[in-house]
Amino acid sequence: VKKSDVVQVILGTQYLQAPKNITGSAFAPTNIALCKYWGKRDQELNLPVTPSLSISLGKKGANATITVSDATHDEIILNDQLVNTDVPFSKRLISFLNLFRLSGTLAFTICITSNIPIAAGLASSAAGFASIVKALNGLYGWQLDTSSLSILARLGSGSASRSLYQGFVEWHKGVRKDGMDSFSEAIREIWPEFCIGLLIVSDKEKGVSSREAMQRTVATSALYSAWPQKVTTDLADIKIAIAEKDFNLLGKTAESNALTMHATLLSAWPPVNYAISETIQAMQKIWQLRNNGLEIYFTQDAGPNLKLLFLQKDLATIQTHFPTAEILQPFA
Amino acid sequence: VKKSDVVQVILGTQYLQAPKNITGSAFAPTNIALCKYWGKRDQELNLPVTPSLSISLGKKGANATITVSDATHDEIILNDQLVNTDVPFSKRLISFLNLFRLSGTLAFTICITSNIPIAAGLASSAAGFASIVKALNGLYGWQLDTSSLSILARLGSGSASRSLYQGFVEWHKGVRKDGMDSFSEAIREIWPEFCIGLLIVSDKEKGVSSREAMQRTVATSALYSAWPQKVTTDLADIKIAIAEKDFNLLGKTAESNALTMHATLLSAWPPVNYAISETIQAMQKIWQLRNNGLEIYFTQDAGPNLKLLFLQKDLATIQTHFPTAEILQPFA
Repeated sequence: VKKSDVVQVILGTQYLQAPKNITGSAFAPTNIALCKYWGKRDQELNLPVTPSLSISLGKKGANATITVSDATHDEIILNDQLVNTDVPFSKRLISFLNLFRLSGTLAFTICITSNIPIAAGLASSAAGFASIVKALNGLYGWQLDTSSLSILARLGSGSASRSLYQGFVEWHKGVRKDGMDSFSEAIREIWPEFCIGLLIVSDKEKGVSSREAMQRTVATSALYSAWPQKVTTDLADIKIAIAEKDFNLLGKTAESNALTMHATLLSAWPPVNYAISETIQAMQKIWQLRNNGLEIYFTQDAGPNLKLLFLQKDLATIQTHFPTAEILQPFA
Repeated sequence: VKKSDVVQVILGTQYLQAPKNITGSAFAPTNIALCKYWGKRDQELNLPVTPSLSISLGKKGANATITVSDATHDEIILNDQLVNTDVPFSKRLISFLNLFRLSGTLAFTICITSNIPIAAGLASSAAGFASIVKALNGLYGWQLDTSSLSILARLGSGSASRSLYQGFVEWHKGVRKDGMDSFSEAIREIWPEFCIGLLIVSDKEKGVSSREAMQRTVATSALYSAWPQKVTTDLADIKIAIAEKDFNLLGKTAESNALTMHATLLSAWPPVNYAISETIQAMQKIWQLRNNGLEIYFTQDAGPNLKLLFLQKDLATIQTHFPTAEILQPFA
């Protein structure tokens, strides 16, 4: 099954029709997985081996504005800077946009503004592709439901399928070959006390992309065979934790899930360790604070930065210990 | 099955007999596992879940001298310092010695001299218990074969069973409940070019003992279920590498095996990360050097230090990049 087949099914008679508007604009939040997406069962469609569960970050994310242009080629403007169309980022975006237009007939100006560090393991591509799909929905006037937008966003970047919603979000793995049952849904629970601290220890681009790291893990890690069962257990526990507002269960499960994902990477070949010295030091500090009774946990994605998980009651304490952390309250 | 049952079977009519000599003294090398021992199927007898394979470190190890004394209690002298008999190290040693004497009838003076940092992940207990068992064999005049000594050493510390030999050593996991088939044997291959560099980044005692870490992994790590199969594959590859003097196969397999062991620890709860900042920096440096064509690999045990694996042809280069590493040539 090809991406274009999926787009055709979702758009039906609207497939490859001209945009109804001149411009479309939308915001999508970035999301942080509490139960990670790690491994694809289909590279083309970004279909995951397992389900996953995330929290969206409110106003942290990307805004995309797509405008029909008179030029012969797409123009991409990222954070007010024109991006060369030859770089991998642009090629990936243009080939994604090609799914929705007759090639050569329509050029776009795509402006993306992101308030999160690019490629620092903060799911910038998730917010990016989700905002682009929402902007396309406005531009073309498709009026698709959010599940359909989630499927389209997934074709751009797997975790983008979760950035269509705020709050806690579950991405169903699905079983179909065409992935029509692999989309995200919001978990309708509000947890106002839930806080996240972005602990940026490096905003350099990572050496190994998460896409490459994931493929390498599935292909070479002897431990990967145990990952799906870990997700099954963790996902169930996190959903219980959310429903019962059991923060320690949530924190423990999310941290263990992240460490287990990184564990599968360590056992890949060549091995990948996203942790740098500062990551290790921060982990040790968190573990020490927790031993002393503070309810603090972390999660880590395909980069060196940590995301602290804690409750509002401990906000002042966390700020004392991690003065550089950017604090977010997803439900505020 | 209890330790004393095993001792009784091995010593037969010599069990609990008086020493034939006044003193016994022996040296045993420490060993570094290239395919790790990680997980016990029997806590009492230190029976492993998997086989393992190590290289002994020549003159790096421990010397034990055990002398019958007139005192009412054992005296333990470690590196010329009298050790309090209440500390865990002493209790463990005394209860091991109790396996071989009628309690209260015989006191020993035990002098252990070790030329390796204690508890820095350099298998000091392996060399210690192996040297003690050899010293006891001399003191009592048992004249046991090395396989039997290997079994007795295992009762003190699992990896001690491998310290009865120099060179490459395989510890058979065995299948019997009494562990009589779980002992080590030498692999009779000489590899004079094989070098090891001890990269000590910290000689502080580790926070979590390997014994505790191992138990925690088996009890809580979701990835541990995949470890035995990893060992089966790696052990076969390392034996091929040794037989064919295929250094890259040996290095790659040993490094991946060590990282996979640490991966299972990361996924345990509470998580354990023996790597400190300096460990991570050294790993990154090794990976970079290897990317540039240098044939360097590492292994890591339950501590922050790394053991570099390389061939003699690269000795000068390694010394330039790691001036503090202590270079050992196990076959020199």
